[in-house]
Amino acid sequence: MAATAKSEQTRRLLIDTALRLFASQGYEKTTMRAIALEADVSVGNAYYYFRSKDDLIHELYRSLQDEHRSLALPQIREGHNLGENLLAIFSSGLTTMEPYHAFGVHFLRDAMAPHRRDDDAVGRGKSIAMFRQAVASARPQPPVALRSDLPELLWLMHMGITFFWVYDRSPGQRRSHRLAANLAPLIAKLVILSRLPVVRSILEDVVHLLRGVRREG
Amino acid sequence: MAATAKSEQTRRLLIDTALRLFASQGYEKTTMRAIALEADVSVGNAYYYFRSKDDLIHELYRSLQDEHRSLALPQIREGHNLGENLLAIFSSGLTTMEPYHAFGVHFLRDAMAPHRRDDDAVGRGKSIAMFRQAVASARPQPPVALRSDLPELLWLMHMGITFFWVYDRSPGQRRSHRLAANLAPLIAKLVILSRLPVVRSILEDVVHLLRGVRREG
Repeated sequence: MAATAKSEQTRRLLIDTALRLFASQGYEKTTMRAIALEADVSVGNAYYYFRSKDDLIHELYRSLQDEHRSLALPQIREGHNLGENLLAIFSSGLTTMEPYHAFGVHFLRDAMAPHRRDDDAVGRGKSIAMFRQAVASARPQPPVALRSDLPELLWLMHMGITFFWVYDRSPGQRRSHRLAANLAPLIAKLVILSRLPVVRSILEDVVHLLRGVRREG
Repeated sequence: MAATAKSEQTRRLLIDTALRLFASQGYEKTTMRAIALEADVSVGNAYYYFRSKDDLIHELYRSLQDEHRSLALPQIREGHNLGENLLAIFSSGLTTMEPYHAFGVHFLRDAMAPHRRDDDAVGRGKSIAMFRQAVASARPQPPVALRSDLPELLWLMHMGITFFWVYDRSPGQRRSHRLAANLAPLIAKLVILSRLPVVRSILEDVVHLLRGVRREG
């Protein structure tokens, strides 16, 4: 137990030190050796925790995703409409990432790295589960025809907001917050309208398009 | 005239040399001095053409946009439907950028840089004009209600494809081409369906959302 706590402390120390050095010297110029030195951890020990800077960024991104879920899940409540649930998830996501905006590009690179795929599947699964809960607890309930595809579609919207946020240079990333605030009710409205055949057919095309794009090869 | 040709030649030499060094040593590690040295141009002269590496990337991106227009415009023909015109623009954009995929992240950074705004407005205007032509020459003609907003909306879709392409690691960015091929007819279908009040109201919401997001502050 004590060993685990100590281990967790060292991991956190290395991440925090790396973030500080990335911020002051830039990501490219910061070496693993410099991070270890600055954190007062032996170089060998540092490599035991993280094989590379990319690994550090990956761990940070993953821990932010966990933090996001802890923040968002209590806000998803039975009886809220879908727009309210979505806004809770989108906003808490932006809030969680805000202190790390300078590393946003590295998060994207990490998220899109091919060798992360297996690992990603776990994180993506957890994120999609959060949207599944937002759909399941929403009142009124989304149309049955859409309910199974919707969580993944919403997760893709969330990734879209994250992309936008990475390149958003407005103060406090205000434009990203505005995007989230406007997108959440628009999606909710579309979901309600999907009871109409013409809107459902459009949404089916969108689902088909996104599936095609995500498919490999 | 000869001086201008020589000047253009030096600019091109500096860009090509920079690209080669960025590719072999990485963007961060390549200095303006190293680029000048490798191109056999005096450092002072190199700075006369480009104040920084960012400037180099910016110029390259801008010249690619010009190239894209020269490639796309002849393919936009009276009598084609909107989907065909869009696919011509999207595909030629991907083809033009393909050799520079490794610098995609820097293109995005450049496109989103706040100090580029005035300059951007010119490039954006030219790009939007290309989509205006795609709309004007499309048969059947898009509904009147949508015709004025459509070019900018289409340009934003094109930016979305560019974002996706930057992070697309599939061989030859195949997934981006698939996205373009599927998105073009879907947009065209939506435009036709916008004659229905429910679809028009959705598109108006989307236009409103995008306007809100692009607004500063």
